[in-house]
This record gives sequence, structure tokens and C-alpha cells, in this order.
Amino acid sequence: MEWTRATRYRPYAKWSARQLLSLQAQAANSPYQMRYHIRPQSGLLNDPNGFSYFNGCYHVFYQAFPFGPVHGMKSWFHLESPDLVHWDNRGLAIEPGPDPDSYDNAGAYSGSAMAIGNQLFLMYTGNHRTDDWVRIPYQCGAWMDADGRVTKWDHYLFKNPAQFSEHFRDPQILKHDGLYYCLLGAQKADDKTGHLDLWKSADLKEWEEVGIVDFGVANAGYMIECPNLVFVDGKAVLVFCPQGLDKQVAAYDNIYPNMYVVGDDFDFVHAKLVNPSPMKNLDDGFDVYASQCFNAPDGTAYAISWVGLPDSTYPTDTENWANCLSQVKELHLVNGHLLQQPVKAMTSLRRSAGEAQVANQTTIVPASNNQYELAVKIAANQQGSLQLAAGEGYHLDLNFDTAAGQLTIDRGPSGASVNADYGTTRQTMLPAGHELFLRVFVDHSLCEIFVNDGAHVFTLRFFAPDQATAIRMSTEGLDYQAHYWPLQQM
Amino acid sequence: MEWTRATRYRPYAKWSARQLLSLQAQAANSPYQMRYHIRPQSGLLNDPNGFSYFNGCYHVFYQAFPFGPVHGMKSWFHLESPDLVHWDNRGLAIEPGPDPDSYDNAGAYSGSAMAIGNQLFLMYTGNHRTDDWVRIPYQCGAWMDADGRVTKWDHYLFKNPAQFSEHFRDPQILKHDGLYYCLLGAQKADDKTGHLDLWKSADLKEWEEVGIVDFGVANAGYMIECPNLVFVDGKAVLVFCPQGLDKQVAAYDNIYPNMYVVGDDFDFVHAKLVNPSPMKNLDDGFDVYASQCFNAPDGTAYAISWVGLPDSTYPTDTENWANCLSQVKELHLVNGHLLQQPVKAMTSLRRSAGEAQVANQTTIVPASNNQYELAVKIAANQQGSLQLAAGEGYHLDLNFDTAAGQLTIDRGPSGASVNADYGTTRQTMLPAGHELFLRVFVDHSLCEIFVNDGAHVFTLRFFAPDQATAIRMSTEGLDYQAHYWPLQQM
Repeated sequence: MEWTRATRYRPYAKWSARQLLSLQAQAANSPYQMRYHIRPQSGLLNDPNGFSYFNGCYHVFYQAFPFGPVHGMKSWFHLESPDLVHWDNRGLAIEPGPDPDSYDNAGAYSGSAMAIGNQLFLMYTGNHRTDDWVRIPYQCGAWMDADGRVTKWDHYLFKNPAQFSEHFRDPQILKHDGLYYCLLGAQKADDKTGHLDLWKSADLKEWEEVGIVDFGVANAGYMIECPNLVFVDGKAVLVFCPQGLDKQVAAYDNIYPNMYVVGDDFDFVHAKLVNPSPMKNLDDGFDVYASQCFNAPDGTAYAISWVGLPDSTYPTDTENWANCLSQVKELHLVNGHLLQQPVKAMTSLRRSAGEAQVANQTTIVPASNNQYELAVKIAANQQGSLQLAAGEGYHLDLNFDTAAGQLTIDRGPSGASVNADYGTTRQTMLPAGHELFLRVFVDHSLCEIFVNDGAHVFTLRFFAPDQATAIRMSTEGLDYQAHYWPLQQM
Repeated sequence: MEWTRATRYRPYAKWSARQLLSLQAQAANSPYQMRYHIRPQSGLLNDPNGFSYFNGCYHVFYQAFPFGPVHGMKSWFHLESPDLVHWDNRGLAIEPGPDPDSYDNAGAYSGSAMAIGNQLFLMYTGNHRTDDWVRIPYQCGAWMDADGRVTKWDHYLFKNPAQFSEHFRDPQILKHDGLYYCLLGAQKADDKTGHLDLWKSADLKEWEEVGIVDFGVANAGYMIECPNLVFVDGKAVLVFCPQGLDKQVAAYDNIYPNMYVVGDDFDFVHAKLVNPSPMKNLDDGFDVYASQCFNAPDGTAYAISWVGLPDSTYPTDTENWANCLSQVKELHLVNGHLLQQPVKAMTSLRRSAGEAQVANQTTIVPASNNQYELAVKIAANQQGSLQLAAGEGYHLDLNFDTAAGQLTIDRGPSGASVNADYGTTRQTMLPAGHELFLRVFVDHSLCEIFVNDGAHVFTLRFFAPDQATAIRMSTEGLDYQAHYWPLQQM
């Protein structure tokens, strides 16, 4: 397939069922495929959308291009879960177009969801292209009923005012003091700088701009994508993706980072994060972007991330599919620092058959199924490497020094190269001279490493050879304890 | 959609991806949809196929018409599982045609699978239609590799010899004493009677007819479908579906039954079941057909059934999808009678949240999620009804009399009518004056009732209103104990 504009933006009705069935089977059968994470049924997955609680269940959607490993005519695919772990695929929820003059004629782009009455309100950016391929970003609405039927609104909610360029998208719907609010990522038309823009409405129909959000950052690059306001342990947290951010403002290694800022509160009237912290990187790994956060009815804050990056390629592109979502992470704040932890129900994936406990020897598991959870406690003042997906010259390297307080992930030796232009290592500093606790989730080509109860998370893809499945320590005599559980698919 | 021959047999390439995505979403979102059983991704599911063990996993396929709730151009869809409970959809495995002169140009019909070398051999009936719509049943072969890639053979294996009509299908591949054997369902061309036919081959390529199988039944109706030979606790068991069977030969209530006969052994040389028992009904419920059985490498015999019947309609037809597979059943023999039991791993679906234990009161669970396992021990000499999916005038009725020894299932009051021409009740006799143990699995519109450790199984679909989810006893003062577990989706 040659990915021209015509093939990327071909209407779904012009692809054949045979092509789709073949792509679905190819994605499902890949040895790299995730088995307990949300993954594309075919083609490309990107941003999580509409992460919400409705009708007694959690819901999440994802951006999809079902016909190949490229960004093209995007739709929303829907999943439902009772526990944030066991997700049930509900299929295509928002189809772009299908009329040539639809507000979303070139893609139903990212957005959010909120339960209102007995329906779920979906708010998203209609990526409209004129005949001359000029983009108009319409902010659109749709209702989803309890049976998953989606009805798009006839009218759009608003579009970009003159001060913003065509880069005006990713609405997060919020409710505060009886009013609806909407937070968007935006680029100013004149100086091409990235901002967050706040809007308000009494009825979801008539919208008014509140203004550009002041969150204490003077220069956030040329665009901000995927903004979220979420309340964590009584504080207001903004999570967002600045593009072209100066690394002096906040350090990062990936092509674009996923950042957060913590405030004491959020002032909706003045569009202002109160007493904002400095900007911090959300994930210390290689592949997290477009994280979406929401507060469940009980107030708990959850996040889910796209594991994939814009303007990047992955080894599964040759298999016509790409990317996945992270597991859901529960958010807490300790001294202004975000903790991200696996949700409780993740333990329900543990299979007792094959479970193992090991201490102080080099081999932890001689051969795994690369579908497991591993909990490792490493004593203070140890230096070595925990090697995952190890075998014949390959391994994913978790290099630790609990004397100096350092953890370095090196995916260079793990197999097929992934975006190596941005480096093969990621590092974080830890308390020196302290025990290190790692809770590691491996799902074939995905690895999520929760460090010290979520004080740091490394999320990354790696592409190991088939037989590389051992788990071991690099050197003899290390003082550690490990617990290994094979995990069920979901 | 008007289901003409042209629409039923339209090539998959002529359906659009948009239609398929819409059908997939519709099937996934139905409130009647099963959540822990194998169900169609879209359209109609029928026979299980290729139930086998290969490459460290269990495999099963199903007959699929992905484009509607009717029998049309059939394909094989594939699933894989480590434990016979958690199945992972692998998608389309055998596409019919696609060339107009392919051996399976009008459908890749039912068949079986066997691990040979490092591949899985798939043997199936190519439903070939000539330009004049004359059917030729070609027995076809294909290889599936460890990555799920299927390659059809260029040549067919054999077709119906002159003594058989076009009804010659459903090959079960077997191995015995260094030779391959194949058991098929067949109809004699002259007197239109149903038979089992045995073939043999040294190399899978050259096949020779051994002969019609003598299994002690003189008159098995006008056709036998879906034959299986499986070895259970040292005995040879034939499982098959006779059509047009005289009810004097063996009692049954459904349009067509799924029967079994037990022999001391199977004589492959003379195509003879040694010392055959009388024919018995495999399932006491309303909807089991086309069960497929196989012996795992450790010798354990397993069965999985189509829950659905030929020439029948179901309420979900209006939602464009139909049917599901049963859970896998482990087979044992006690005094020549087949016991069918849930596999061990079924308990891994139990969710502790919501688990309940109740005794001797009328309400067992006031409201369930219709996705659960219920174990009930009813003392001897009790008369009453266990009512599932109960609410406002509706319930699925399990009427017991442990004095007389009788269990009657009535789906009449459960909701939408299902094939009521064949009655709304099914009954079985039990030991009089004995405790009754029921292990019941409910999955939205599917109910599987294992009676007295699998001495009887009732499998049935029912279509209750949304709010009918209570579990209760009909009368006060009954002596029983119940244990309820909500189950996870898979």
C-alpha cells in the first residue's frame, strides 16, 4: 500500500471487508501483539479518548486508523470495563464523515466524554478539510446511549476564533459550579505559540471563550496537544503534551514529551492554575504521549496513555498495525510529585500456574511467556542489571545502582531498533543508599516499570526475538527478592 | 438486507469495511451478547471447527458468516487459549474462494485440525458450487503455522464417491497405528440415508475409502453431520448429529439432536465401533448442535458445542448476529454414561467482588449482572423452582422435585420466544429421593446447567428483558445452599 493523501483519507465505505478482515487477523496474530493491554483491532491506534464512567462501567475510546500503520482518516473505537483491567471491545463508535461536507469529513479527532443524564456526551474535534484541503477544526458533540449507539449532533459547538490557527483541538469537557467548561490545545495564529484555551457553556450548545489558561509557563513551544485538568488528592493537575518545548523549560528525551503542572486549585473564572509548580515529565520511558485523565465518581484520579509517539515509526509498521494503550494508572500526589500506580484489579490477571519466588540468584525465570508481572525488591548498595526478554545476545536492560541512586533503562540490546535517533537509554535518579522496588509488567512488546510505588514510571515498547524470554540478574551475589506471575490475557 | 442467494454468497471482497465495522459494533454492543463465551465478531457463528492443541496452546475455530444472521458464504475464524477458558480472537483464518473456481468457492465448511510437525493441519469441506449451482463437496487441506498464517493446499484430498450424494462433509482427521484416518458425515445417494464414512491415508495426500462405519445403528435418518471419534476413559465414543432421526431410535426434542454412542473400542481396519451402546442425547437443553471433541496430548477428552441449531431463528437476528459456542466441557464415562464437566480453569473467571453465599431463603441474589456462576445444593425431598433472570413477570424456570427425581427447565416465561414450535420445556429424570447439585453458568442470553457433576447438561439460550436479573427460589422454606460468583468477561 502506498500511503498517499488519497489512500489515507479514503472513506471507510471504499475499503473492502476482505481487506479489513485480513488486517484484523494480521494484527491479532503478531507475536509482538499485546495480550492484556488495549491494542488496535487493525491498523494504527493513537490517543485515548473519552475516558469516563457511565452506566455502571468505565469507558475508554481510542483514535484509530483501521487500514494501516499510518495516520489517516481517524475514528473512535470504544471499550468498556467493570474494573479498568478487563476491557471489552465494542468496536467503531464515531465514524468520520461519512458525507463529504461533514464537520469531521477528514477524521473524528481526539476528545473526551462525560455522563450527562442517561447518556454519555462525547466531545471531539471534527477534522474538516475543504476541497482545497484547508483545515477547519470544528468542536463537535455526540450522544452515546447505554447500548453503545452514537448519534452525532447536527451542529458543531464552536470553531477556532481568529486568534488561533487551525491547530485548535482535543477538547476536554468539564463541569464546575453548574457550568460546563472545555479545555483545548491551541496555537496562536500570529506568533505560532502553543497554549491552553478555556471555554464555557450553560447548556453545551452556546459556548463562550473564557480565555487562554495561565498555568505559569511562558513558553510551551509551538503547540500544546491533549490537555487534561484532573483533581488529585485535593490539588489541580494539568497534564498536556507541548510540542517544540525548549528543554531548558523542562527536561525530556522523546520527540515530544507528556508533561504535567500541579496547582493548588484551578480558577475557572479567570482561567488560571493557582500557584503552579514547575513543569515535569509524566513518564520516564520512551513512548508515552497523549495521556488522558479523569476523576471517577468517587473522586479517584486515573490516567491512561497512548504508548506511541507522533512523527515516529515502529517495527510493527511492516505488519500493518501500530501502538497500544498503557494500563490504567491511579494518580496520587506526594509533595507535589505525581505517583502513578497500577489499579487494584491488575492483580486479578495473575495466574497461579507458573508463579515463582526467587532470591539472590542470577536466573529469575529461565523462560517466560513475555506476558507477566514481576515484582523485585533490590537491597540498598547493589549494582547490576535486571535483564528482561533475555536470550542469545539480546535483553532489555534495567541497570540499577542503589548506592548512588540511579536507574537506567537501555532498550538498545533488546532487539529491533526503535526511534534510536532519540537515544536508547532513559535514566532517573533515586534516593541514594535505599532499597529499590520495581513492579514490572511485560506484555510481549510493551514494558511498564513502576519504580518505588509509582514515584517514577518507565513505559516503553521493545521488539525482542521470539526466543528471548528469560528474566535474570547480570551478576552473581546480588541481594534481591523477586516474585513472578504469568498474567492472563484479557 | 434481503437475503437472496446473491447476497448470501457475495465474495468477502465485495462487502465494504464500513458495513463490517458497523456489524461488528452492533454485535459487540448487544445486551444479549455473551461476555465469557466465544461469540461471533459479527454476523452468524455455527459449528466449532479444528478444536486442537498446537504450539503450546489450545485452538478452536468457528464457522462464520460475518455479514448477517444467516447461513451464507462461510469462513473459519480462529481463537487461541492457554487454558480452554481465556480465548484470544485471532480473526479470519480460512477465507472461502476467493477465486470463482476455488474448491471452496461457496464456503469453507466444517472440519478439524491436528498438529503435524511444526504446523497445524486443517482439514475441511470445500463447498464448491458449479455455475449451475450444483454442489461438489471437496475435502480440502491447509497448513497453519505458529504465527497463525494459513496456506491452503493446491489440490483437494478427495471428493464424494458415487455411492454418496452431495451431502458428504465435516471431516475429522485422526491418527492411528501410523496411518491418518478421516471420519465424515455422508448421505447415500440411492436411499438418502445418513451414515458415517471412514477414509485412510499414509501421507495425507492419497486417500482411500475404508468404508461405512458400523456403529450399531441401522437407521440414523437422512443425514449425519459433524462426526467425532474421541476416546474417553479408555472407551471409544462417537459424537454426531443425525438429521431426520426416528424418535423411536433415541428420544430428543430439538429440531435435530446431537447424539453419542459408546463402544469398547474402535476398529479402524473394519470401520466398526466395537460393542456399541444405544444412542443417547448429548445435551438435555434446547440449543446444542455440532459438538466437536478431541483428545488433548495428555489424553483428556474435551468437547465444545455450537449453541444454535440449523434451520432455526433467534431473537438477535434483528441485530444482525446469531449464536455462540458453549464453554469447553471435559468428558468422562461412568457406567457407559458420558459426564460433561466445566474445565478446571473456569474458576479463574470468578470475581470475589459480589460473591455471595445464601441458604434456605427465597432471594438468592436480588439483582445480578446476568454474568455469573451459581452453585446450588438442594436437599432431598424438596419441590420448587430455582428462578434465574427474574424480574417483573419474567424468569427462567428450573423446576425441581428431589423426591420424585425430576428437573424441568422452562424457558417459556424467560422473555422473547425462541423456537417455541419445539416446546418451551426440557426435562430429565434424576435419582429419586437424592440431593441435587446444580452448577449454573449464566452469560446474558446463554445458560449452561451442569446437573450432578455433569451427569446431565442443559444448554440453552434465553432472551430476558434488561432488568430481569434476580436469582430466587419460588417458595419459602426450601432446604438448599447456594454460592454465587460474578464472572469476569474474557
